[in-house]
This record gives sequence, structure tokens and C-alpha cells, in this order.
Amino acid sequence: MNDEPGHRLAADAGERLARVALTRIAEPGDELVGRWLRTHGAREVLRALRGNGARLPGAGERRWDGLRSRTDRARPEADMAAAEAAGVRFLVPGDREWPGQLDALGSSRPIGLWVRGAPYLRFWALRSVAVVGARACTDYGVHVAAVLGAGLAERGWTVISGAAYGVDGAAHRGALAAGGATVGVLACGVDVAYPPGHAELIRRIGEQGLLVAELPPQDHPTRSRFVLRNRVIAALTRGTVVVEAALRSGSLSTARHARRLGRFVMGVPGPVTSGLSAGVHELLREEGSVVTDAAEVIELVGNMGELAPRRHGPAVPRDVLPGEAACVLDALPSRGAVESAQLAQAAGVTADAALVRLQELCALGFVERLGNRWQLAREAKPHPGHPIE
Amino acid sequence: MNDEPGHRLAADAGERLARVALTRIAEPGDELVGRWLRTHGAREVLRALRGNGARLPGAGERRWDGLRSRTDRARPEADMAAAEAAGVRFLVPGDREWPGQLDALGSSRPIGLWVRGAPYLRFWALRSVAVVGARACTDYGVHVAAVLGAGLAERGWTVISGAAYGVDGAAHRGALAAGGATVGVLACGVDVAYPPGHAELIRRIGEQGLLVAELPPQDHPTRSRFVLRNRVIAALTRGTVVVEAALRSGSLSTARHARRLGRFVMGVPGPVTSGLSAGVHELLREEGSVVTDAAEVIELVGNMGELAPRRHGPAVPRDVLPGEAACVLDALPSRGAVESAQLAQAAGVTADAALVRLQELCALGFVERLGNRWQLAREAKPHPGHPIE
Repeated sequence: MNDEPGHRLAADAGERLARVALTRIAEPGDELVGRWLRTHGAREVLRALRGNGARLPGAGERRWDGLRSRTDRARPEADMAAAEAAGVRFLVPGDREWPGQLDALGSSRPIGLWVRGAPYLRFWALRSVAVVGARACTDYGVHVAAVLGAGLAERGWTVISGAAYGVDGAAHRGALAAGGATVGVLACGVDVAYPPGHAELIRRIGEQGLLVAELPPQDHPTRSRFVLRNRVIAALTRGTVVVEAALRSGSLSTARHARRLGRFVMGVPGPVTSGLSAGVHELLREEGSVVTDAAEVIELVGNMGELAPRRHGPAVPRDVLPGEAACVLDALPSRGAVESAQLAQAAGVTADAALVRLQELCALGFVERLGNRWQLAREAKPHPGHPIE
Repeated sequence: MNDEPGHRLAADAGERLARVALTRIAEPGDELVGRWLRTHGAREVLRALRGNGARLPGAGERRWDGLRSRTDRARPEADMAAAEAAGVRFLVPGDREWPGQLDALGSSRPIGLWVRGAPYLRFWALRSVAVVGARACTDYGVHVAAVLGAGLAERGWTVISGAAYGVDGAAHRGALAAGGATVGVLACGVDVAYPPGHAELIRRIGEQGLLVAELPPQDHPTRSRFVLRNRVIAALTRGTVVVEAALRSGSLSTARHARRLGRFVMGVPGPVTSGLSAGVHELLREEGSVVTDAAEVIELVGNMGELAPRRHGPAVPRDVLPGEAACVLDALPSRGAVESAQLAQAAGVTADAALVRLQELCALGFVERLGNRWQLAREAKPHPGHPIE
């Protein structure tokens, strides 16, 4: 994708600002806008929409006017200033923190991502799994999602979900309770607490993990935005686990996206007498894999060398690590495991920062987690007699 | 297999009697004896065991002496007389009622089968499914097995199981309650009520369905006989459904046999929090298919043209039908469905006999069941303007 204007100009402030504006104008996943971005770049698309010239190719009059009518909403400088003040950053394709696996979405790739939280999204998403399911789930679904979220997090995997009631929330809570990595992908602005009953949970995800949205701050969710959000969850992760879902449930759309993108599709079975497992069983009969715990999920997705060739050593070279992560890595003893608090002292960073960086390093294959302790991963260790490269 | 002495001599009274004797001498599934039978025929094997000549090839001294020590137990004429008096028949390979799919067992094919019950085993086994599982199952397992047994029976499929406590019993009861076809394959003589608490159930299976055993009358089950019995259940059926099973449960051995024999392996999922579903989930993760009801089972096994090419019309020619079955078939109206009692009157047979024959005809693809009514199958109907062939 290096030949597209949107990529070359990623570091260009004008192009970035135009993408900020376009997140207010276009709905998520608009493939026509996606194609324009690839062909003309964001600035050119914005200029055309704001001007009185010819329509860009492929847009009928009504479609064009619809987009044009929303250009007034876009105040990109103000949006960026407000976002920065609120600790929200904006990522575009080509940024170092941009998760490259989103490129699999083709023309429906997000225009940009609004992100809140300290961790480095690209690294956290490298070893991640989506855990999704019914909002109106049963106690069984809550229990399974929470145990699965905790189990994945304990093993150094990032739990990505939609922060909705039911299964989503339980999965996030499980990961948070295990002191692990979790990302909430919202169908609204990262500063909007939706659903309202999850305001506190969403706040905690933003503090301990990451909140991600295609929609700009202040924007609210709609029915279609929920479905379109699901494609981002599917694309970010190596696989999607559906915990409970009724037949024809909306929560199956993430699994369908995952399948289309060539990601792993997994389902947690339940009683065949439960309508809330019927959708999962249908999925499993079609082509998903049965999983009953975190170890089975990891057994499946952990071998997908494509996104993180863990078996062949760390996924990125050591010298691209952000400064703090490099400090934490340097502070790890060459033998044995230590607790994150110990390591924070040795590295001269806060305990919270140490944990965030350790999880990144884990996702990248540099370190391994053993319960509450961390150690250098075998592949990342120096050969005997040789210093770490 | 037509070139083997055991087959050619099937109708030979001496060969048959020798096989009767050998069911008292050899344990079920003894592959060495199976190979001797294929090479020498049953009479020759029996004569060698009873005589003082050389050992048959492949048997060590201890093995040979072990078999010889049991020849005194065999009183084939008395066994046959007692069996006939008790309404028990003995089938050997090559008999018309012998289910040919047992040949897939190779050298471990049963020496013969002791059968109790009016229906024709070969026809009933043509469209059959094994429903098996844990003895100490949960209420969920009982419920699922009973509904599955009833659902399969209602759709004209024969439910085959082991008459054990738990899942097996529930599957048989479901089929019986639906007025359908069920076969109990026992690990003891067909006149032994084991387990004792299922004496009444086993009596009912023998009256309404079929009891089948490799072991001769009066013989009792042992631990190894249960496991060996499972291979017969797997071989008789087009597929095996495991309803509940703990990890490493013995009830998974039927599924393993089914897999080895190229039959369908299916499992009913349950809560991942239940140890009694763990074995099923493991099976499903290895290679079994998720099924949640009878329709899904039939969708899977019903397309296996090999055993009963139903889509190409009935599985056997009309003129091999036993007399009573032919009468019942003739009595069916060329259009519309009738109840079995009505049909019994028209055919001049008892209501019980009509039901048994209708189920055979259903297994053979001549008739279809619609709830409590029966009609000619589409494929078996004459072309317009042509009489039934």
C-alpha cells in the first residue's frame, strides 16, 4: 500500500487533518470514500466535497449531496485540539502505531482511529483475540466470557471486544481483573460512555487498556455503526470467539467478518436446550472451531505465524521499540522471572507503565508471563556466550 | 468376502453350529480366531481346538491352551435348541439377515450374532444411528438423549445403543416412546438383563425392537466385553452421536471405533463448565461434527449413499422383501398417508407386525413416516401411468 497517496502522506499534517475531518463526514466502512482515499488522498477528497466542482467518480447526486451536507460538521483543528486535551490521539494508516492487519479490510479500512489509553495499539493488537457475544446473555455466558477473558489475559493475550452489555463486558472485566490487556472498540466516540451502564467499565478500560473508535469524539452510536464496528474487531484480532449468541443474532456478524478476513472463527458450546447457544452451535456446524477455554483458543490462534512469527523470535526488531519499552526490556534479568513492581524500580518507570510495556513486549514475543512474574522469552534470549543483540 | 469358507458355508448347518460353539469359546473381537475363520472355516477351527493335533498358526501355547480349556463349555446343539425355544435366533455372515456393514470390522467381525425380536436386523440397521454416552450422565444428558432418540425414530431412523444406564437407556426410551425402531447391542447374552435396573427396558426393547449380542445366551458381561461390544455398535450404524462423556470416558470408545471405520462421528455440545461434556467437546475439537438435534444428525448421515442409496430409490429390490413386509407394502395406498392400525387391517396382519414391517420398509426407502402416518416414498412410487414394478 506504499504507493497510495494516503500512505505516503501519513506523516503530513494536512493529510492527517483531512482524515480527521472525513471521520465526521463519512460513515465507518464507506467503501466509496475508501476508494477515493486510495486514489486521491484525503485532502483532495475533502477539497472536492467542500468545493463546487465535479462529483468524484462513483457517487450519485444524492450520495454526493449527502456527504457534502455533512462537511459543515467537520472542524478538524478544533477536534484535534479537544482530543489532545482529553488524552485522545488520532492514528492514520502509515503511522507506526497503526495496526497493519486493518489493511485486510481493503476499501472499508477505517479512515483513521481515535485512541485513548497509554498502551501502543499496534503491539497490543499483534497477539489479540476477540471475545464477543449476546448482550442479553445468560449467567453461563457471563461466567464463560469472564473466565476466558482472564485466561487469555493471564497468558499474555489481548482481549478485544465491544464494551457492550453481557458477553463483551464480562470479557473485558475478566481481562482487567487478571491485570491483563484489553481493548474496547466502540461504535461511538472514545469519550462517549455507551452503553450508559458501562460508563465505569469504559473508564477503566481507557485507564488500564485502550479505547478505540472510528467515530470522532462526541459521536453517538447507531444501529449500523454497531455492525460496522464489528468488522474492526474482527480485523484487529487473530480470531473471534463467540461465547453466546441466539440464531440470527447481531453478535454473529463479528464472526462472519472474521471468516471473510481469513481469521479464526471459534465458538464456546453450551446446552443445546439454550436458545442463546443456538447461534454459536450453528456457527460451529458451518465452520467454526469448538473452544472451551483460553488454552484451546491460544493453541489455535497462536500458531498463525503470519501476524506474529513468535516461533521464529520477536515480531519486530529490538531497535523499533519505544524508549520506555526498551528500558523495561533492558531491566529484565537474563535468567529467572521477576514481578512487574520489582522491574518498574529497576527500569525507573511507574508500576502501571511497567505493566503496560511488559504486555507490549509479551505481544511482541520479547517476554513471557508466568502468573504474576515476567521473564525474557526463550527466543529473545541471547545465545550462550553472546550478548543480547 | 465371497471367497471365504465361512461365507460360502453360511447356510451349512455344520458350519453354523461350529460358529455357535465358537461364540462360547472365543471372546468377542478375537482377531486371531477371526483370521482362522477366514482361512479354515469354523468347523475346522473347532475341530483343531478340540483335537490333539498341531496348533493353528499364530497362537502361542498359553493362548492355544486358553482357548482349548473353554471348548468344554460349548454345547452348540443344546444352545441352539434353548435359544430357539426362547425366540432367539443365531445369524452368521452370509445369512440374508446378516448386516453386511459388519464386514468392515475385518478379522474382528463377530463370529455370529444372537438376536431376539421380530424385526429384520439387516433392514433396521440400514438406516441407523448410534446414540451413546455416559452412564452417570446429568439430567441434561438424559433429556437430550431421549429427545434425540425420539426425533430419530420419528423420522424413520433406527436408534442403536448399549442399553446401559444414563444416555444409552434414555436414547432407547425416547425411540420406544415414539413408537420407533431401536436396537440394544448387549455385552452379555440376549437373555441376560444387564444392568439389572434395566431389566424392564431390555424386555421392552426385545418386544418392540431388537436385542443383539455376540455372546451366547446366559453369558455375562465383563469390562473388556463392554469395550468390544462398542465396536459392533459403531460398525452397525452410519454414525455415532455422543451425548455426554467425561474426558477419557469409556463411552468415547464407540466414537473412536466409528472414526476408524469411516462412519460419522458426532457430538452434542453442552456447558463447558460440565465435566460430563468435556469428553464430547474434546471429540468435537478432534474431528467430530456438532449436532444439536435429530434433523442435524440425519442431514449429516442421510447423504451417505454407500449404505443405502436412498436418493436413487429403495435400497433393495422389492422381491427380496420378506412376505409380511411385501403384504404391508402392497396394502399402502398409492396416494396419501394412513395410520399403521388401518394398514394392519388392510394387510391382514397384527398392529404390532404392521409397525415393525413399516419401519423396515422405511429403512429400506420404500415408505416414509409422517408423524403417526405412513405413505409410499416418492422414489418408490410408480411413474404416472405405470404400475408399481
